[in-house]
Amino acid sequence: MKHLLSIDDLDREDLHALLDLSEQFVAVNQRDIPKVPALRGKVIASLFYEESTRTRLSFETAAKRLSADVMTFSIATSSVKKGESLRDTVQTIAAMGIDAIVVRHPAAGAPRRIVDWIDAAVVNAGDGRHEHPTQALLDVLTLRRHRGPSLEGLRVAIVGDVRHSRVARSDVKALHALGAEITLVAPPTLLPESLEGWPVAVSYELDDVVSETDVVMLLRMQLERQHEGLFPTLREYTARYGLTVARAERLKPDALVMHPGPMNRGVEVAAEVADGPASLVTEQVTNGVAVRMAVLYSLLGSGAPVA
Amino acid sequence: MKHLLSIDDLDREDLHALLDLSEQFVAVNQRDIPKVPALRGKVIASLFYEESTRTRLSFETAAKRLSADVMTFSIATSSVKKGESLRDTVQTIAAMGIDAIVVRHPAAGAPRRIVDWIDAAVVNAGDGRHEHPTQALLDVLTLRRHRGPSLEGLRVAIVGDVRHSRVARSDVKALHALGAEITLVAPPTLLPESLEGWPVAVSYELDDVVSETDVVMLLRMQLERQHEGLFPTLREYTARYGLTVARAERLKPDALVMHPGPMNRGVEVAAEVADGPASLVTEQVTNGVAVRMAVLYSLLGSGAPVA
Amino acid sequence: MKHLLSIDDLDREDLHALLDLSEQFVAVNQRDIPKVPALRGKVIASLFYEESTRTRLSFETAAKRLSADVMTFSIATSSVKKGESLRDTVQTIAAMGIDAIVVRHPAAGAPRRIVDWIDAAVVNAGDGRHEHPTQALLDVLTLRRHRGPSLEGLRVAIVGDVRHSRVARSDVKALHALGAEITLVAPPTLLPESLEGWPVAVSYELDDVVSETDVVMLLRMQLERQHEGLFPTLREYTARYGLTVARAERLKPDALVMHPGPMNRGVEVAAEVADGPASLVTEQVTNGVAVRMAVLYSLLGSGAPVA
Repeated sequence: MKHLLSIDDLDREDLHALLDLSEQFVAVNQRDIPKVPALRGKVIASLFYEESTRTRLSFETAAKRLSADVMTFSIATSSVKKGESLRDTVQTIAAMGIDAIVVRHPAAGAPRRIVDWIDAAVVNAGDGRHEHPTQALLDVLTLRRHRGPSLEGLRVAIVGDVRHSRVARSDVKALHALGAEITLVAPPTLLPESLEGWPVAVSYELDDVVSETDVVMLLRMQLERQHEGLFPTLREYTARYGLTVARAERLKPDALVMHPGPMNRGVEVAAEVADGPASLVTEQVTNGVAVRMAVLYSLLGSGAPVA
Repeated sequence: MKHLLSIDDLDREDLHALLDLSEQFVAVNQRDIPKVPALRGKVIASLFYEESTRTRLSFETAAKRLSADVMTFSIATSSVKKGESLRDTVQTIAAMGIDAIVVRHPAAGAPRRIVDWIDAAVVNAGDGRHEHPTQALLDVLTLRRHRGPSLEGLRVAIVGDVRHSRVARSDVKALHALGAEITLVAPPTLLPESLEGWPVAVSYELDDVVSETDVVMLLRMQLERQHEGLFPTLREYTARYGLTVARAERLKPDALVMHPGPMNRGVEVAAEVADGPASLVTEQVTNGVAVRMAVLYSLLGSGAPVA
Repeated sequence: MKHLLSIDDLDREDLHALLDLSEQFVAVNQRDIPKVPALRGKVIASLFYEESTRTRLSFETAAKRLSADVMTFSIATSSVKKGESLRDTVQTIAAMGIDAIVVRHPAAGAPRRIVDWIDAAVVNAGDGRHEHPTQALLDVLTLRRHRGPSLEGLRVAIVGDVRHSRVARSDVKALHALGAEITLVAPPTLLPESLEGWPVAVSYELDDVVSETDVVMLLRMQLERQHEGLFPTLREYTARYGLTVARAERLKPDALVMHPGPMNRGVEVAAEVADGPASLVTEQVTNGVAVRMAVLYSLLGSGAPVA
């Protein structure tokens, strides 16, 4: 593995290997001093063209726990405002001497283009509506730790604005590769225009699937969508697609609830559900650090066992 | 001590113990390499919902000198803009694995609420008009180094906008606990609506107290207050409450002048006074790093002697 | 050397010594782990009052590779917005305990004033239209590596908005000190009002010098200048002063092309030329880290050999 651009780059065996490695870092992170010297002296640049707290900090935390140095490139104080091209920006960062670059960019495919411009390893931290592979990895890691080792036959409902969601795209690929059965639940306006080739079932009503699903993966509702006419009101959205307390009571006793965050409490998920025993939300965040350590270690490590 | 939320949490003995520990870090900071391994592997998150240079950098410097890792959470690039709740933000940060969180927030009491949400130690770096305990600690440390070990009977005038000042609230508590005699000096509009329970005298004229005070603690005048009708003009404020050169000449020969910064030179303090021999302003900043090292060491250290 | 404020502070011998040291850091940076312990425990503050990606990150990368700790002072989240003076800001940062401060400021001479206010070493990272000494150092290092060790008689054309360029001012001094022959190429409106004392020739037409020059140093065209009436249109600027493909074909076979970045592709330089074999643009960035390591090492190091 030279880059991590898309879940497509990983087959089932790769996925399990990466998840096994992530498990080792989950263990590292539970130590009193959660740090290993694996990437000492390596430099990892973090280049975010879109705001993000959790993903950027998760990657930076992962890098530091591997003893790598982090160069944070913040667009707010950058040459980008002076109209510099992505290519010049990336080549400039690379010329300072980096081993990997973690990129979030609003344009789908931006990370893949960067691969052609520099020698460093490229990690996609979210590109447009395309992919967010480390989010999918942390999601399947979290599920594997609860329902694993295989996800064969696990029924997963992905609920909400699939159309605009890179998280959903990556999750579908990773879940499918590991054998889960996926149902997308959304109004037609929030589904992709074509689902050809997607290994999924579709439902327009959360009520129709809620009692049969093993895992409910909620997507963040971008409140702006309302103004785009893609759904009538937040209240109506919540009424049909929100995981309300009433709906959560119809879940199987051992069903799991996930959300990539940040949550709109009271919109896609009721606060009581988000904080309830079925919720894996904070566990997802914790596992995110381990998964990103595994990704960076795979790309930049010596191949030696994790210390 | 599990958290530092308010000076109320500390009695006189606690205060002296923390100040004694701070003295040890003053000494560490005077070494050629001002660094100790005490908190190696610990992760300290810095979460500032209000702008601050000095406090944030002071805490981060303190953390680094203790060999801790720092995660800086900047609201400018955060999910907060997406409307995430304080609780979700804090729980997300905590889920990445942190040992302490240093929080500044415009709402009084925010740090105390955070204590209920996460396991990490919480340090209040300023909450609304409530408290700013490490500022008070550095102020009394600075005074103790000049007038100590006891502050018994020391006459301290706190001058300016006490009403809106968390610094004043914390300072009053810490100074009183250590035996100082405090006079608040301000126009009635800039005093708290009720002073019931405050162990202070009050004066409306700096001229009435300037020659009898041992320490003048100036508060920053928020220039916005003028537009709120709380005082007529800056010039009038300075005329009655500014530590002008003329007024400074009436100070006792060994009187001390303090300011938490950033200063409005020419408003609450004349430039000549701020830079003069009585001024402890830069010493306060220096001691601030030592005090914050002591706080973090108390919360997270092993209890072993400072290396 | 106690500070680096201007190329004027360095004579030819100093320059060569600093460039020789830089060569050692070029070698360090090519190691598998490009890090030396030289400045372990030293604290370097980075204080940028103007936006910059490359310079700030270059200095911070240099500091980290020397194992120094970096305190980044970002104006976006600083007390500066509260109207604090440069002096108070700098003295506050210094009081936290720093060994050097790297400053970029819109006012010419700001770094020199800072020298009087604090004990730490001061490095000018660009002050108004005055100087940008480390840029000049990295430029001459890059040339010396291609045409060195002496630059005696090397013909260098500096093309563009010399008037507003601190890069040009520093480059002229450094190039002249090392024996190069300099021609400024620009419309009269973009040349300094007086060139008295500048050791340069002047041309108003790039076409007149392009075939005889050894090095073309392009300056960034600030697109705002157009609105100031200093040149008619970008298209006309490019027609007369841009290093277009056609003009580049008239260059000597071994001519070199340099740009401090960020580039306006298609304005001062054609994309094909920027990415072509004559271009040293990314090499300049790489050498910038080495030069800044040499500067910080000279100011703060023990004088021991580079590890």
